[in-house]
Amino acid sequence: MIDKKEILKAYQFRHACKLFDPEKIISDEDFSFIIETARLSPSSLGLEPWHFIEVQNKELRSKLKEGAWGATLKLETASHFVVCLTLKSSYMKYDSPYVADFMKNVQHHPEEVAQARRKMMENFQTRDFDLTDERKIFDWASKQCYIALGNMLTTAAMLGIDSCPIEGFNRETTDKILKNDFGVDTDKYGISYMIAFGYRANNPGPKTRRPIEKILTWKK
Amino acid sequence: MIDKKEILKAYQFRHACKLFDPEKIISDEDFSFIIETARLSPSSLGLEPWHFIEVQNKELRSKLKEGAWGATLKLETASHFVVCLTLKSSYMKYDSPYVADFMKNVQHHPEEVAQARRKMMENFQTRDFDLTDERKIFDWASKQCYIALGNMLTTAAMLGIDSCPIEGFNRETTDKILKNDFGVDTDKYGISYMIAFGYRANNPGPKTRRPIEKILTWKK
Repeated sequence: MIDKKEILKAYQFRHACKLFDPEKIISDEDFSFIIETARLSPSSLGLEPWHFIEVQNKELRSKLKEGAWGATLKLETASHFVVCLTLKSSYMKYDSPYVADFMKNVQHHPEEVAQARRKMMENFQTRDFDLTDERKIFDWASKQCYIALGNMLTTAAMLGIDSCPIEGFNRETTDKILKNDFGVDTDKYGISYMIAFGYRANNPGPKTRRPIEKILTWKK
Repeated sequence: MIDKKEILKAYQFRHACKLFDPEKIISDEDFSFIIETARLSPSSLGLEPWHFIEVQNKELRSKLKEGAWGATLKLETASHFVVCLTLKSSYMKYDSPYVADFMKNVQHHPEEVAQARRKMMENFQTRDFDLTDERKIFDWASKQCYIALGNMLTTAAMLGIDSCPIEGFNRETTDKILKNDFGVDTDKYGISYMIAFGYRANNPGPKTRRPIEKILTWKK
C-alpha cells in the first residue's frame, strides 16, 4: 500500500515538459524501471501489442525531427526518447499466427482454451467492436498502448523524472523514417506515440482540469 | 519519490480480477482518490475527453448485462462499477464550440493562443493523424481515456484494491442501454470501456509477459 499523499504528489509533479536540462541523465536503473511498468501493464486479452524503441543515437533523433513538429526541442534535450510502436492487424487479427503463437507460448493456454479465446476474440472483433479493417484494428491495439503510456508517465513522476507524451508528428512521414532509418517493418508495426523523458529545465505553469462533478456521474 | 519496490508490488498485485467478494466495499475516500488520478491524467491537448459513470444502482447494473457478456460476474460482485464515456467528434473536432469553450474557460488560454492551438489541432486532425471521420476521431479521443484507465488500475492496486478493465461488451447494444436507461446523450458520448473495482474473491494465477528484450530495442 502506498500513501495517497505520495501518489498525489506524483500526479501534481507530472506535466508535459517542453524543455529538458540536457546535462541531467536518467540512470539505467530508473529508465529500465519505467519500461518495466509498461511491460507489466494490462492489455486487451493480454496480447501486449507494443514495442518500444529507445533512441539515444543523435543522427536518428535528428531524422525523427522531419516528421515530428511537436518533438524538436525534446529530441534535442531529453535524456531518453521513446517511440512506441503498435502491432498492426497482421499480428492482432483473431486468426493471425501471432495470436495463436502468443496464446500458446507466452500465455501457456492449453489448445482448447486458446481456441475458445480466439473464438471470443473473433466475436469481439467482428461483432462487438466493429474492428473490421486495418485502421480500426490498429486503433484498438493502439488504445492498449495508451494504458502503458499512462503507467510510464506516472512511474516516471513517482521517481522524480519528467516526461512529455507526444502526438505532434505526421504519422505517414514518421512511419517512413522508421522504415528507412530504423529498420522497422511497417507492415507489422505503426507508430502510436513518442515520449521524452528527462529532467525539467523550467518550472511548469498551473495545472488546469475540470472539477470532479463535471467528469463523474453517480447512479445510486 | 516513491520506492521502486513499493511500485513494483502494486504492478504484481494488479490482475484482471474475475470475481469480487461482494461483502467488501471500497471506502468513499479510496474510490474518490482513484477517480482523482483519472481526473489528473494527461490527454492530447489537455482536452480531457472523458466522463465516468459509477453504477451502484442494481437495476442499472442488471441492464448493462444485456450487452456486456464479459461483465456479468463483475456487475454482480464488484464494489464499484465504472463506465467510461468518450466525447465524440461533435465535441472533439478542432472547430467545435466545445473545444473553443474548453480552451477559453478551462485552460484559460488568451484568444490568440487558443486560435493558434486550434489551427495546430486542425493540422493534426486533418493532415497528420488522418482523423477525418466520426470513428477515427472517436478512437483518437478514446485512446486518451485509456491513459486514465492505466492510471486508475494502478492507483487501485497501490491502495490494495482489485480491478478488472472490461472490453467484453457489444458497443452498439451498450450505447443503446446507456441512451435509454442512463439518459446518456449518445450523439455526444460513446462507451470506451468499463472497469469493475472491489476486493478479490480468489487468488490469481501467475502473470505472463514477454521478456523485456522482446519489447524494447535500443538505438545507441
